[in-house]
Amino acid sequence: MPVRKILVIGIGAGNPDHLTVQAVKALQTVDVYFVLDKGSVKQELVDLRASILAEHVTRPYRWVEGRDPERDRNPADYKATIDAWRRDRADVVRGLLAELGEDEVGAFLVWGDPSLYDSTLAILDDLLARGESFEVEVIPGVTSVAALTAGHRVSLNQVGKPVQITTGRRLAAGWPSGVDDVAVMLDATYSFEGVDPDTWIYWGAYLGMPDEILVSGRVGDVAARIREVRDEARARKGWIMDTYLLRRS
Amino acid sequence: MPVRKILVIGIGAGNPDHLTVQAVKALQTVDVYFVLDKGSVKQELVDLRASILAEHVTRPYRWVEGRDPERDRNPADYKATIDAWRRDRADVVRGLLAELGEDEVGAFLVWGDPSLYDSTLAILDDLLARGESFEVEVIPGVTSVAALTAGHRVSLNQVGKPVQITTGRRLAAGWPSGVDDVAVMLDATYSFEGVDPDTWIYWGAYLGMPDEILVSGRVGDVAARIREVRDEARARKGWIMDTYLLRRS
Repeated sequence: MPVRKILVIGIGAGNPDHLTVQAVKALQTVDVYFVLDKGSVKQELVDLRASILAEHVTRPYRWVEGRDPERDRNPADYKATIDAWRRDRADVVRGLLAELGEDEVGAFLVWGDPSLYDSTLAILDDLLARGESFEVEVIPGVTSVAALTAGHRVSLNQVGKPVQITTGRRLAAGWPSGVDDVAVMLDATYSFEGVDPDTWIYWGAYLGMPDEILVSGRVGDVAARIREVRDEARARKGWIMDTYLLRRS
Repeated sequence: MPVRKILVIGIGAGNPDHLTVQAVKALQTVDVYFVLDKGSVKQELVDLRASILAEHVTRPYRWVEGRDPERDRNPADYKATIDAWRRDRADVVRGLLAELGEDEVGAFLVWGDPSLYDSTLAILDDLLARGESFEVEVIPGVTSVAALTAGHRVSLNQVGKPVQITTGRRLAAGWPSGVDDVAVMLDATYSFEGVDPDTWIYWGAYLGMPDEILVSGRVGDVAARIREVRDEARARKGWIMDTYLLRRS
């Protein structure tokens, strides 16, 4: 019985060379690429994905784009809003998957690694639960957290100690208990400004890309500079992707 | 002024194809590879690294091995024991670096990503603090955590929620506060047996390798099977590298 196969491929944090050999080989099997377009703001990222394909793919393929539904970034009820956005997004993705013939291979290219703050796997699970039929294979990638620590040449954890990965929204509610090292993603509200000024911060934006910006230091010394650099870069480019590591010693 | 350069290259979790394009390009610049040999037990991993070089490197290089000092895996004082072991290891690495000429490029190949529970960066920092002179560049890699979640086709975090990465030793002391998702590395003592039996576990060993083993389920249902599978595999191969994700819903 023919089975449609969906690859969810982690393509790394922004440097096209983050692509793994496994991902490069997987690209050679893909018939259809699915893209959720967020609109012109992040056109640079869409172009970057296209250039990755141009560099590594020699076989013919189809490119099917869907419109990523708008999402409220500061919802009153975070989970309910995310759930509704996911449902809308799943409907869009079901439409995309209709373009995939039996026995064909489709692929989603995911920034970083598909396991970390990305909803592709959850959407595909939703569709399977709704009766769609396909196989899923995940190709792991370099996370933006790994790109951050590589840029700063630091460890993510202190010796034998735990590290938490969380969101800016969560950090704004207070320093997580039981950890001295916190990696923060998806922070649109400068939550690092609220932590103990003696905390060390390793901040990075556009990680792995030619525009990469790195700032590190004591929060009390560098927080204002990070806000300034971040605002300037976002205004200039029209978008920003950044992450940071906070460390108490 | 000539500067020695040390690359710390993440080579992924065990699948040679986890190597990134960036790492492949970096390998082409290396004059000397430094290897800390842990003895015959993990010869399979030493061989795997050699096969990665055989596949990707065409230029001549030197291969310098040092003997990794023995480490007490169940020390009374964890931090002091680790610190002493690190000092010994730094002495060994200083001896290795003496083999690197001015203007040459040396490299350490690190399993997974150099930022996560690996001591290479800390050793190099120690040596810089002791007056050695070299530049460090880090090439990020696919972590064993990303390989684990890819194998199980699951997310590391639940929507908008934090995740903690910790050690078996820490988990044995109790479930970390403030998180429902915990990735555990370096667990030699089956700490998952102590958690709430309704917790879900995604366990994997030899991730990304031909011998990869994946087991998932409710802890109360699969913990005994994981112990059995793990003991059998370790006895058969002489070593094991495993990790797991625990999830409370």
